Amino acid sequence: MSGSLIIAGLGPGAAQLITPEVTAALNEATDLIGYAPYVARVTERDGLTRHGSDNREELDRASHALRLAAQGRRVVVVSSGDPGVFAMAAAVFEAVDAGDPSWRELDIQVLPGISAMFAAAARIGAPLGHDFCAINLSDNLKPWDLVERRLRLAAQAGFVIALYNPLSKARPWQLGRALDLLREELPGQVPVIFASAISDAREAIDTVPLAEAIAERADMRTLVMIGSTQTKLIARANGKPFVYTPRSVGAAT
Amino acid sequence: MSGSLIIAGLGPGAAQLITPEVTAALNEATDLIGYAPYVARVTERDGLTRHGSDNREELDRASHALRLAAQGRRVVVVSSGDPGVFAMAAAVFEAVDAGDPSWRELDIQVLPGISAMFAAAARIGAPLGHDFCAINLSDNLKPWDLVERRLRLAAQAGFVIALYNPLSKARPWQLGRALDLLREELPGQVPVIFASAISDAREAIDTVPLAEAIAERADMRTLVMIGSTQTKLIARANGKPFVYTPRSVGAAT
Repeated sequence: MSGSLIIAGLGPGAAQLITPEVTAALNEATDLIGYAPYVARVTERDGLTRHGSDNREELDRASHALRLAAQGRRVVVVSSGDPGVFAMAAAVFEAVDAGDPSWRELDIQVLPGISAMFAAAARIGAPLGHDFCAINLSDNLKPWDLVERRLRLAAQAGFVIALYNPLSKARPWQLGRALDLLREELPGQVPVIFASAISDAREAIDTVPLAEAIAERADMRTLVMIGSTQTKLIARANGKPFVYTPRSVGAAT
Repeated sequence: MSGSLIIAGLGPGAAQLITPEVTAALNEATDLIGYAPYVARVTERDGLTRHGSDNREELDRASHALRLAAQGRRVVVVSSGDPGVFAMAAAVFEAVDAGDPSWRELDIQVLPGISAMFAAAARIGAPLGHDFCAINLSDNLKPWDLVERRLRLAAQAGFVIALYNPLSKARPWQLGRALDLLREELPGQVPVIFASAISDAREAIDTVPLAEAIAERADMRTLVMIGSTQTKLIARANGKPFVYTPRSVGAAT
């Protein structure tokens, strides 16, 4: 078999944030597979077949990609951000693990990308400058009780918390519940950052105290970051503060 | 003032992992500041002054960069990986916060890069495919008790744990202690990944069960990832398994 499967990260949106390694892989692909809006970010050209699919079809998409690679195609599965973070890389390896034993001998590579939390953090300062965690707030694939338990432990640990997939039409109440729970664990002045559509034309980012954070500020394209008790704001004349978490902490939180 | 300060991430090592945005910033810089081995990764050219400095001088380096920017220079501070993760971005904002009030009105931008944990994860599969945390294991800037507390809470939360700065000549015992502590919290078969010098010629990555993990496998350029109870290996004929953490988890850990 001469086929290959690459799972590539397109970063948050801007072409300037796509690594040369990913660009080269896209230029050599015969087949492109992914959630339709991500596939649409790659320009059409002769010799490239684009297979866009709906959201929440990750395993079907992964199996499709593996079958094509096994047939000798050069397949690239595209993800937004980094493919290893709540994205297609895990789905592909789940499909490999459960699928045809020959699939595990395929040439499979993951090419990293700029993850949403780092793109968002960079836009506002350095909120992830100290220990942090990333939690997928979706309870489609894990029980909500476990999400709540992780949020509490993360707050108790003093992690800055990046929340991916904070809400959707099918999951309208989870972010509000998470914010309520975090208000039980953390002081009300802890900064909460809502970062939407980072690096594209609709980019919006703002910071509010946890006490005033409401779920309605977020949508499907929002990343939410909850600061720790150490996270600080630096006021500026333009009204857009820098937000950062110092590297040092004097005593246990 | 027409000066500017950019804090740019060079990624883990390979030029193929540097974003076009960062490359453009490097091409327009008048002054380059950073830890000497990182500064050395940027090619010399007319009009560019390279200021390499020793490790552990982050605040001096940040103040130097801010002074040059305030004088009208186009300054780029370089970090390995992502500048917002245990790197120069937080140091710069600490210096802004504590320094000359005019500094906060400077044009300061952070340009994200591929962080070590995502580069390492990509090389071996998708170990960060579920909720995870990143902990700087250095106790230079925080008490060791706090590191221990965070490790325990992270293990209890079921996070995959990425350990940055696992050891150095001045911190020889901390990683061994961390592994011992994690063995109290997690089953011995949990996979531990040691990833060194990812994307450069000396790259080495291997996986051992937590029960057999010893600190001597790591050096200053190693990132250590501790799997969760859900993290799985997929055996391959070449003896190099894929390692991934499934997106779903059926019940609380």
